[in-house]
Amino acid sequence: MKQKLRVALIGQGFMGRAHSNAWRQAGHFFDLPYEIETQVLCGRNAEGLAKMASTWGWHETSTDWPAVVSRPDVDLVDIAVPNVLHAEMAIAAAAAGKIVLCEKPLAVSSEESARMEAAVRGRPNMVWFNYRRVPAVSLAKRMIDEGRLGRVFHYRAQYLQEWGNDPTRPPNWKTSRAGAGSGVVGDLMTHSLDLALWLNGPLREVMAMQHTFAAGRDIDDATLVMARFANGSLGSFEATRYATGCRNRNAFEIHGERGALGFDLEDLTRLRWFDATEPRDLQAEKKILVGAATHPYAGNFWKLGHVSGYEHTFIAALGDFLGALSRGERFEPGFAEGHRVQLAVRAIQESANLGGWVSIE
Amino acid sequence: MKQKLRVALIGQGFMGRAHSNAWRQAGHFFDLPYEIETQVLCGRNAEGLAKMASTWGWHETSTDWPAVVSRPDVDLVDIAVPNVLHAEMAIAAAAAGKIVLCEKPLAVSSEESARMEAAVRGRPNMVWFNYRRVPAVSLAKRMIDEGRLGRVFHYRAQYLQEWGNDPTRPPNWKTSRAGAGSGVVGDLMTHSLDLALWLNGPLREVMAMQHTFAAGRDIDDATLVMARFANGSLGSFEATRYATGCRNRNAFEIHGERGALGFDLEDLTRLRWFDATEPRDLQAEKKILVGAATHPYAGNFWKLGHVSGYEHTFIAALGDFLGALSRGERFEPGFAEGHRVQLAVRAIQESANLGGWVSIE
Amino acid sequence: MKQKLRVALIGQGFMGRAHSNAWRQAGHFFDLPYEIETQVLCGRNAEGLAKMASTWGWHETSTDWPAVVSRPDVDLVDIAVPNVLHAEMAIAAAAAGKIVLCEKPLAVSSEESARMEAAVRGRPNMVWFNYRRVPAVSLAKRMIDEGRLGRVFHYRAQYLQEWGNDPTRPPNWKTSRAGAGSGVVGDLMTHSLDLALWLNGPLREVMAMQHTFAAGRDIDDATLVMARFANGSLGSFEATRYATGCRNRNAFEIHGERGALGFDLEDLTRLRWFDATEPRDLQAEKKILVGAATHPYAGNFWKLGHVSGYEHTFIAALGDFLGALSRGERFEPGFAEGHRVQLAVRAIQESANLGGWVSIE
Amino acid sequence: MKQKLRVALIGQGFMGRAHSNAWRQAGHFFDLPYEIETQVLCGRNAEGLAKMASTWGWHETSTDWPAVVSRPDVDLVDIAVPNVLHAEMAIAAAAAGKIVLCEKPLAVSSEESARMEAAVRGRPNMVWFNYRRVPAVSLAKRMIDEGRLGRVFHYRAQYLQEWGNDPTRPPNWKTSRAGAGSGVVGDLMTHSLDLALWLNGPLREVMAMQHTFAAGRDIDDATLVMARFANGSLGSFEATRYATGCRNRNAFEIHGERGALGFDLEDLTRLRWFDATEPRDLQAEKKILVGAATHPYAGNFWKLGHVSGYEHTFIAALGDFLGALSRGERFEPGFAEGHRVQLAVRAIQESANLGGWVSIE
Repeated sequence: MKQKLRVALIGQGFMGRAHSNAWRQAGHFFDLPYEIETQVLCGRNAEGLAKMASTWGWHETSTDWPAVVSRPDVDLVDIAVPNVLHAEMAIAAAAAGKIVLCEKPLAVSSEESARMEAAVRGRPNMVWFNYRRVPAVSLAKRMIDEGRLGRVFHYRAQYLQEWGNDPTRPPNWKTSRAGAGSGVVGDLMTHSLDLALWLNGPLREVMAMQHTFAAGRDIDDATLVMARFANGSLGSFEATRYATGCRNRNAFEIHGERGALGFDLEDLTRLRWFDATEPRDLQAEKKILVGAATHPYAGNFWKLGHVSGYEHTFIAALGDFLGALSRGERFEPGFAEGHRVQLAVRAIQESANLGGWVSIE
Repeated sequence: MKQKLRVALIGQGFMGRAHSNAWRQAGHFFDLPYEIETQVLCGRNAEGLAKMASTWGWHETSTDWPAVVSRPDVDLVDIAVPNVLHAEMAIAAAAAGKIVLCEKPLAVSSEESARMEAAVRGRPNMVWFNYRRVPAVSLAKRMIDEGRLGRVFHYRAQYLQEWGNDPTRPPNWKTSRAGAGSGVVGDLMTHSLDLALWLNGPLREVMAMQHTFAAGRDIDDATLVMARFANGSLGSFEATRYATGCRNRNAFEIHGERGALGFDLEDLTRLRWFDATEPRDLQAEKKILVGAATHPYAGNFWKLGHVSGYEHTFIAALGDFLGALSRGERFEPGFAEGHRVQLAVRAIQESANLGGWVSIE
Repeated sequence: MKQKLRVALIGQGFMGRAHSNAWRQAGHFFDLPYEIETQVLCGRNAEGLAKMASTWGWHETSTDWPAVVSRPDVDLVDIAVPNVLHAEMAIAAAAAGKIVLCEKPLAVSSEESARMEAAVRGRPNMVWFNYRRVPAVSLAKRMIDEGRLGRVFHYRAQYLQEWGNDPTRPPNWKTSRAGAGSGVVGDLMTHSLDLALWLNGPLREVMAMQHTFAAGRDIDDATLVMARFANGSLGSFEATRYATGCRNRNAFEIHGERGALGFDLEDLTRLRWFDATEPRDLQAEKKILVGAATHPYAGNFWKLGHVSGYEHTFIAALGDFLGALSRGERFEPGFAEGHRVQLAVRAIQESANLGGWVSIE
Repeated sequence: MKQKLRVALIGQGFMGRAHSNAWRQAGHFFDLPYEIETQVLCGRNAEGLAKMASTWGWHETSTDWPAVVSRPDVDLVDIAVPNVLHAEMAIAAAAAGKIVLCEKPLAVSSEESARMEAAVRGRPNMVWFNYRRVPAVSLAKRMIDEGRLGRVFHYRAQYLQEWGNDPTRPPNWKTSRAGAGSGVVGDLMTHSLDLALWLNGPLREVMAMQHTFAAGRDIDDATLVMARFANGSLGSFEATRYATGCRNRNAFEIHGERGALGFDLEDLTRLRWFDATEPRDLQAEKKILVGAATHPYAGNFWKLGHVSGYEHTFIAALGDFLGALSRGERFEPGFAEGHRVQLAVRAIQESANLGGWVSIE
């Protein structure tokens, strides 16, 4: 008989839906050690909550998050609300002894993320940097760990969207400092930074520029960064909402002594790989269709050539988290990793303000 | 209060899993008019059944399909077993007054499919030609209906897999006539034929060749077809399990007077489109990333650039079927369409035996 | 001191220009054993001839081809005129003791090509099946000869153009039997057939269909073929001028036991290669950018990444021919290969008329 | 009777060969207003010179460049030697009253390039920034001038090569300050800068980093730049010889309000174009195969689908230059544009040394 895990989800937007799906689907693709109880869905819009709870099978709804995070019949609080609310909710949930899962970016400042990390210390926690669990990205990590790149020369990351330049689109919380804390550096580049730190190790220093294209906005519409990693490689990062034609280009390329890897979320079923150790006349980039028997998550989802998609990254993150939880293991990325990303963000923002290089501790 | 719809699923293999997922997920992405009861899972392997039922939430299990299809507490029977068993099960379920859903190919002969079509006449039914519901394929259909191709010259379809050439792979029901009725013509080309008939209209005549590469097999490892469509266009079809490097290339290209369309399941989030009415110096093929607000199923799944995958084709088929059911509308593809595909298969097989052209009634 | 080689070129159209360029450029990229004298350019349009001769450095012009092919100061006759004229000119040139080079298709019937082959027997000769000398295609040949494919299962060739469907385009010699002898089977599919016979060996039998889309034309606008090769592999060939969106898609794919190769003239600098002997989790198609030091013609043209194009296929053919000539070696493809292609064309045309399989001797 | 133009070429390396080819071929593809006399080839290696002159038809050879540039029977001096020699030769040639063509980068410092520009003032001159004349790049320029991008947000340029990381490759003049003046900033990024200034207008300020990966080298193996253009767009530039897998990726992407353009020299026959003014459900990037009748240089080279390559960029540059010369028009890019690029290089180098932003006058 499996132990119950009673879940409260705070958030009823797009992310709330993606998380709900993960809670529903994790048990179908992972051999879960818990019986999930989708106890309560919490949000501000009562009407929408009822409909959403009915669709996704949340037993109850609530508009009172402080009450929710301290309910005795809740074991785990999953936070999927605008960035500026993360810290208060996560710290309250941790104080109430809950397991805490939080959407990215973890916080809107490194001061916040430091407090959050401290608050969950000793408690299971996770940040939803879901793109680590794209099977192709997990495969990249494995190949790097196997030494297939050798010494790394260049790490190049882009997260390019285009909707900033859509005059018909109403402003939302993502386009104001009051809702999001920052613009693309928090919303998009934190994904790139988490992957970079995971795949290529610590950053030593950054030089950044930030720009707002839209009149009247108080957040960065574009952020560009040059960087040096501790391993001696050079980094470049770019995030923007003004890259016309880019629906959701979350991409990286890594050039190493022995090979090169590349990924783009718009083609998320493939990992690009160039093996420089092959005979030169046979060298070329491959786009590996991920899903072969030995690939990450191949045993969880469908067969090779029967591809999975965006939602599966949340399912895989949750499946892995619950496995680690049951084994008493630390899960990554947790709040510590989320805080590490915020430190990089802080250095980027300082650098942009300063117009010079800033070290990362 | 929604009406209950009590479902029995027969099949515990890969397709049983894909169907189970669709039953679980349809209500999350479609506003279902029914409350689904996943009543009973039926199969031959009792041990596997219990595990699978527990994972996917089937209330009961059974190894006695004749009993299952006539249970009074079952409204709908969903058949996902080897091809040779389809006819008997579907006819029994129809005789018991059930709604019947059946995996493709509908049957192993057009005699069978004719009997099956007759058996379900007047009862709701469906064949799982799920690839019509790839959003990109549905978009192709819409664009054709809008007249964007004009007169069609060429329709070219391929369904290429490679696993026939894997000596380490044990034989399974798909590689014997006793289990599958035929080889690739039934397993793969029926998908291509259903799409062709849907997208480009009736076939008039075919000329085919079939070949078995593996010693000792009694099914076709490869089938090639040349064809004439009623609309005057020329067709070519190829299905094989010996296309080294092709994981699951279910592809078509259509060349018309005003434009061309192309699709490949290995890149299922995109539809290729060449608009020949544009100024010549700006003409080029586009790969439309499907998911924009007005695209098929955009309102059901995630946002543009947050792609869905293989499993969603089953979910969409089921969502559409249940919608049609509630409105009392005929659903396509049903057994009639499944039978029409079998008539084409029969002509192909006759042509291959004969070495000449065979008309399709 | 190099021996002089005095050349007469017959033809002042697009091909005449491509050949002129080859005569001018061969010595720049190949260490030619001859001093080329571009003696005389022959055609029907005197005014155009003068301009063209001035541009490309032909010493003289003539409108009298019978006189030209028997001039004592001409060693080699290069024929680049409409197909129906090839036989008479080539046979006359051979009778006059000249080295004979002829555009493809060699002839408009296998009777003609048989006579042509007989006429040049013992004399150096060449057919301009220039696409063998695309570096990527030559690399494919080398890889096949190295055994990288193993047993071949499928050979698939397409030569797709779109200009048949251009109502603004005036008819030309290519769209009439009187000028071209046939439609796409001669103009396009002969390229595919020559490559197939070279890369995959003899054809055993073919089954074909031909179709004319345009009212009033007496040639095939589209030809489709299914085939069996002597090596047991299945073939399919398609040529058309109604493939909207295809500028010049001269493509092939070969699926073998150990790997697969692919090529498309619209991307002529790359060879696609799938190595099925690699570990399965690293398998994927590569697009090899041809030009590495050990690749065919790498020593002749520019550096890797500094690509060559269409015209270089003519230059390479000529460079190779002149090398073979100086060494007294037989060159391929010569008239014998051109005749072999015509035999396949004859079988294809017979099959299309007959509606059944036709063997190739 | 055309006027003679007597040419001296200095340089016998890879570039000397590319220029020789352009001198030989320009008249075949452009209606030249001059009769070209390839008078003298000059270099340091007498033995190699004789062979090269014989191959490419240079009438004479010389190892004495000061004598060559002042010969009365020379009208034009074309300089294709290591960068550090450009200034002295070009200034001497100009002083001798010659027309002067010079390989890129024009100079190794902006002081040099300023002197060079002054020296040729009033005399016809050209810098071989040949990539402006890739037909696809010329088409991009035309589309920008037509207003198809609207306001520009981002300009992103890369010039990525990999050979820095080849331990078997002997050092050459390009890897030392004594020969090249700088590393990739001069060799590669000057190409990107010339295109950027041409396509997107002046740069206002830059922030750069430079890095040397190889022990003992005194030049930059990699240079990264962030920039602001005068038109308000953000720029990023990257050049490296350590991008494993990149044979010759000279690429740019431009994101504008109304569309986006992209180019990559490894696929030089295509221009990528995303039209954001189309209906959203039909939007997607196209790869336009350049060569349609109205495309740049379509009238000069071959037909659509019969692609040209690297060497044609030199031929087109020369064809355009000679046309402008005959009409007495100023040609771009000339030394003025070469100097403008050097000013950007200087700012980049200063910025890298300083670790902060540097304005460009």
